[in-house]
Amino acid sequence: MGNADCVYPSASTNVERSHRVAIPPPQPFVKTFRNTVKETFFPDDPFRQFKNQTAWRKLVLGLQYFFPILEWAPRYPLSFFKADIVSGITIASLAIPQGISYAKLANLPPILGLYSSFVPPLIYAMMGSSRDLAVGTVAVASLLTASMLGQEVNASENPSLYLHLAFTATFFAGVFQASLGFLRLGFIVDFLSHATIVGFMAGAATVVCLQQLKGILGLEHFTHGTDVVSVMRSVFSQTHEWKWESGVLGCCFLFFLLITRYFSKRKPKFFWISAMAPLTSVILGSLLVYLTHAEKHGVQVIGKLKKGLNPLSITDLIFSPPHMTLAIKTGIITGIIALAEGIAVGRSFSMFKSYHIDGNKEMIAIGMMNVVGSCTSCYLTTGPFSRSAVNYNAGCKTAVSNIVMAIAVMFTLLFLTPLFHYTPLVVLSAIIIAAMLGLIDYEAAIHLWKVDKFDLIVCISAYVGVVFGSVEVGLVIAVAISLLRVLLFVARPRTFVLGNIPDSMIYRNAEQYTNASNVPGILILEIDAPIYFANSNYLRERISRWIDDEEDRIKSAGETSLQYVILDLTAVGNIDTSGLSMVDEVKKTIERRGLKLVLANPGSEVMKKLNKSELIDKIGQEWIYLTVGEAVEACNFMLHTCKPSDAKDDQSVESTWNNV
Amino acid sequence: MGNADCVYPSASTNVERSHRVAIPPPQPFVKTFRNTVKETFFPDDPFRQFKNQTAWRKLVLGLQYFFPILEWAPRYPLSFFKADIVSGITIASLAIPQGISYAKLANLPPILGLYSSFVPPLIYAMMGSSRDLAVGTVAVASLLTASMLGQEVNASENPSLYLHLAFTATFFAGVFQASLGFLRLGFIVDFLSHATIVGFMAGAATVVCLQQLKGILGLEHFTHGTDVVSVMRSVFSQTHEWKWESGVLGCCFLFFLLITRYFSKRKPKFFWISAMAPLTSVILGSLLVYLTHAEKHGVQVIGKLKKGLNPLSITDLIFSPPHMTLAIKTGIITGIIALAEGIAVGRSFSMFKSYHIDGNKEMIAIGMMNVVGSCTSCYLTTGPFSRSAVNYNAGCKTAVSNIVMAIAVMFTLLFLTPLFHYTPLVVLSAIIIAAMLGLIDYEAAIHLWKVDKFDLIVCISAYVGVVFGSVEVGLVIAVAISLLRVLLFVARPRTFVLGNIPDSMIYRNAEQYTNASNVPGILILEIDAPIYFANSNYLRERISRWIDDEEDRIKSAGETSLQYVILDLTAVGNIDTSGLSMVDEVKKTIERRGLKLVLANPGSEVMKKLNKSELIDKIGQEWIYLTVGEAVEACNFMLHTCKPSDAKDDQSVESTWNNV
Repeated sequence: MGNADCVYPSASTNVERSHRVAIPPPQPFVKTFRNTVKETFFPDDPFRQFKNQTAWRKLVLGLQYFFPILEWAPRYPLSFFKADIVSGITIASLAIPQGISYAKLANLPPILGLYSSFVPPLIYAMMGSSRDLAVGTVAVASLLTASMLGQEVNASENPSLYLHLAFTATFFAGVFQASLGFLRLGFIVDFLSHATIVGFMAGAATVVCLQQLKGILGLEHFTHGTDVVSVMRSVFSQTHEWKWESGVLGCCFLFFLLITRYFSKRKPKFFWISAMAPLTSVILGSLLVYLTHAEKHGVQVIGKLKKGLNPLSITDLIFSPPHMTLAIKTGIITGIIALAEGIAVGRSFSMFKSYHIDGNKEMIAIGMMNVVGSCTSCYLTTGPFSRSAVNYNAGCKTAVSNIVMAIAVMFTLLFLTPLFHYTPLVVLSAIIIAAMLGLIDYEAAIHLWKVDKFDLIVCISAYVGVVFGSVEVGLVIAVAISLLRVLLFVARPRTFVLGNIPDSMIYRNAEQYTNASNVPGILILEIDAPIYFANSNYLRERISRWIDDEEDRIKSAGETSLQYVILDLTAVGNIDTSGLSMVDEVKKTIERRGLKLVLANPGSEVMKKLNKSELIDKIGQEWIYLTVGEAVEACNFMLHTCKPSDAKDDQSVESTWNNV
Repeated sequence: MGNADCVYPSASTNVERSHRVAIPPPQPFVKTFRNTVKETFFPDDPFRQFKNQTAWRKLVLGLQYFFPILEWAPRYPLSFFKADIVSGITIASLAIPQGISYAKLANLPPILGLYSSFVPPLIYAMMGSSRDLAVGTVAVASLLTASMLGQEVNASENPSLYLHLAFTATFFAGVFQASLGFLRLGFIVDFLSHATIVGFMAGAATVVCLQQLKGILGLEHFTHGTDVVSVMRSVFSQTHEWKWESGVLGCCFLFFLLITRYFSKRKPKFFWISAMAPLTSVILGSLLVYLTHAEKHGVQVIGKLKKGLNPLSITDLIFSPPHMTLAIKTGIITGIIALAEGIAVGRSFSMFKSYHIDGNKEMIAIGMMNVVGSCTSCYLTTGPFSRSAVNYNAGCKTAVSNIVMAIAVMFTLLFLTPLFHYTPLVVLSAIIIAAMLGLIDYEAAIHLWKVDKFDLIVCISAYVGVVFGSVEVGLVIAVAISLLRVLLFVARPRTFVLGNIPDSMIYRNAEQYTNASNVPGILILEIDAPIYFANSNYLRERISRWIDDEEDRIKSAGETSLQYVILDLTAVGNIDTSGLSMVDEVKKTIERRGLKLVLANPGSEVMKKLNKSELIDKIGQEWIYLTVGEAVEACNFMLHTCKPSDAKDDQSVESTWNNV
């Protein structure tokens, strides 16, 4: 090496190195491990409030943790009660027709929709921490239940098995949801990104709307597929079966619902107009059918609904093969979708009102309400966006509005079910379509296009997957693409050449700061990701290429030849053993070219591992600087006091062969 | 806000802000996209050499790209030839017994092992870019072929179908390997980390050794399972079948092989002793059996080997159901394993001799040699580590040593096959065991324990998975854990509190630099990963917790109350739409607590997206600083000229309810 006669500046000259890169103080393995576990599973530090408390206080706090109602009920101000009654009744008026509609969508008896709006809201009111979530069934999970269970059991041929399977799936969904919460695995839901959810919801809404063509057109036979191709084929292959009475009725009610929604959106004060519209439609539709006897002219009606509260269904749960596997699979998939919606909705509203929601606690609450629900003839419930938004607009203050809704539904179950006998199915279809159109959030898609095109790709794939494949396919594709993006970020990290910001010791990305100037004889590279097995080969090649490019540039510009390569490791959060050998190899390659490797600002993890692998001694601790500025200063000093390296001159036959 | 009466310093005072954070100049979408594609698939810039060349020169360079022999053969120095002949003959003497042994391991006719050492090395010599890789079959892929094909077809009951399936699997493996190279997807192999490979290889070696108990003990019936439990049960359930002659012979040869290896390792000059040992064992063993007629006393021998070169097998390939799927599956899995070994071996030796290897080009070469091999009665080949190491030690200079080996094998096939009639199987078992023991790299495992414990977990899981499950299970587990680590890095990024390094404007992680001191009234946080959907919820909670902790600390220490939170975004390489809304929410939460959010050094991607999403205006461009030092200076100025924020005093009933 040509630098052999040059010694480390501070030892022989007046260039002072003011700062040393510290090797972090060693930590016992157990402590590091405990810290990692804590950060992974308990980032919100739930035990914080238990510190330094008496045993009795700890018990009370523990109970309050699982049953927040114990915490807030004693100090529930009466002033809130009026608001909660108003909002509770409002959401009940929405819950009744929606519940019946979604139960039909899941191929379940309509009464289940009412049952599901009675028990689960009560459980959630005790255990949930959101003040705005309105509990109920949701369209997407209902559709998914129908399509997954329908693959093995036909709902019309074997209704009781189908029903029992639906309860069992709900049970497993609840168990799965609650376990995620107990095991602090709530972050799994985070892997459904915002873009995924936008695309997925829009796709599901499209699919659900398409399914309603059955009701609107009064068709009796319909495909079991949910993709657009099967549905279109099914609809247009039986044009002679279309019933115009049904179609006209459906379009009228849809128009009515959309108009009221549009009006309420324009004047948020009149939110209750759109909230009441579904119940109004049901009443109007039922009256119309009752008076005109339209049920005899091709307009299908709900028919008889059983009076009375939820019967117990705990004995109906199926815990034996062959159907249990299907129930578990359905439970897990519908459970995670329902959870994602519930958590996202809860979070959004807590943001508006600025209170805190604990994701893991919410999961336990949602899970428990489904477990209890599955034993009391309910199917999968969560916090639907539409209903919660109405609840919020109606001015709800606490989960008491859910209790009010449950009581209203209870009255309906006890006394009012006969009134739904003549309710036409087409009205239910119109209610579903109107609700679904609100889920297609094209504005969000436009925002994605503007800000992050990759997110738009994720969103579109989810949409296309759901509409042309199935709900599961869309979900899997979107999650896979999202994960691929994370992996690609690590596999292909960005590297930059840094330049000097004029009149400073600051070095920044020359692409971003066009006024940054390069330093003669020194190439400064920044690596923008942890150095892992997945990118160590890439980085090795990329660094070589940067050096090649720089040498080409220097050659054509006739500048000082390259002497130092500074790697700025500020953004390298971690390094693994593959990464360590990569650094070692880069050092060798660089030295073979007659250059010198200098590191700037390695973080604590990187320093720790450089030290443990003894790479720090190979590189030489005097070649590791705290900032790029200090590294450049030291290199500049060497450049101007030492003669250029002559390593490039002593080329043997072997190396000629290699360099060709 | 209490800061409302305080204006941005540079507008009203003498505190000068010297540097602005630049928003990178907008790039057309097409250019960004092209750049991303280039970095993802062409990081090594293979088209560099084609720039500014004539069409004829481009054609020549293109041919040389795919057939490197065209490039180096014309300038092949005769001085290299002697070295290549010596090393070629050395590896041939290893290739012949190893080839036969591994073919037995794959339940294929032994002669296939010789065929596979004839055609593929010739193809590789033309297309490969490594000078040290010695081509041949490998134990792990052989075992994997046997276990995967054996699930559907019994090799002893239906040998011809089994054989044809093996050819077909080789064909698909080759096609898959070459396509990875053509599609520039070579980085898939990078996802097998060093730790995975160490654990996987050790596990596979253990499994292969266990399989040799069949040969050593002279058993005729043996389990088809590869896991340790099935093998042990199979061995100890038939103790009465054990043949002591076979066992004694096996142990003797194993001892001989291990002794020679130990000796060669101590004195690298005598590498040829260990290289010749397998062939010597075969000759000695065959002589012994021939003289003592041991084949009649329970020592199994190879039997008749067909004379002559590889017959064509192109018509044997199976392209029809039901077996094709199995062949494709086997091909892909064995292909990727073989590829990983070949590429890793090629890379290691190119590192030693410092020449460059192009991963994608190597894949094409390995793929093509398997495609051609599958048509000429060869099964899966790659560059085995053991053989390549011998080649390297024997002083090979170029791929000519592969050609020499192929010619030596050709002579064997033409004239010497009858000599192997009496070779005892137990000698082959001893050769395999001796080779496999070298693959168990416990020193690497110890190194992993020292440097990176997570990598050790990956390594052990791969080992346990292979030994107790199957080769595929081990591989899937190890890759899954490795990916989980990458995802966990992104899902749970590290956040640090930064402190001031004494006598400087530098701010660094206070845990690493124990002398760093905190700045009164200002909390400085560094985020160590891109802000993505997978971590945005975590980061929001973690930042809140840092603020809680800091306020607790301040309260107990009685210091200046907190006024500013500076987020250092240096290490945040990218941000997606979920991340952007997280920043927005953090800003709101922080302001609700009466604090002010300040950003330091956002990179180009982050700046671009902050700008596009208009978040930059919400935060205020005057609150974004180029360095933490400048941000602290500005905050300090504000702290000392403005009165403290009074936002905390105006609490309504609603906010009391929220804060409990």
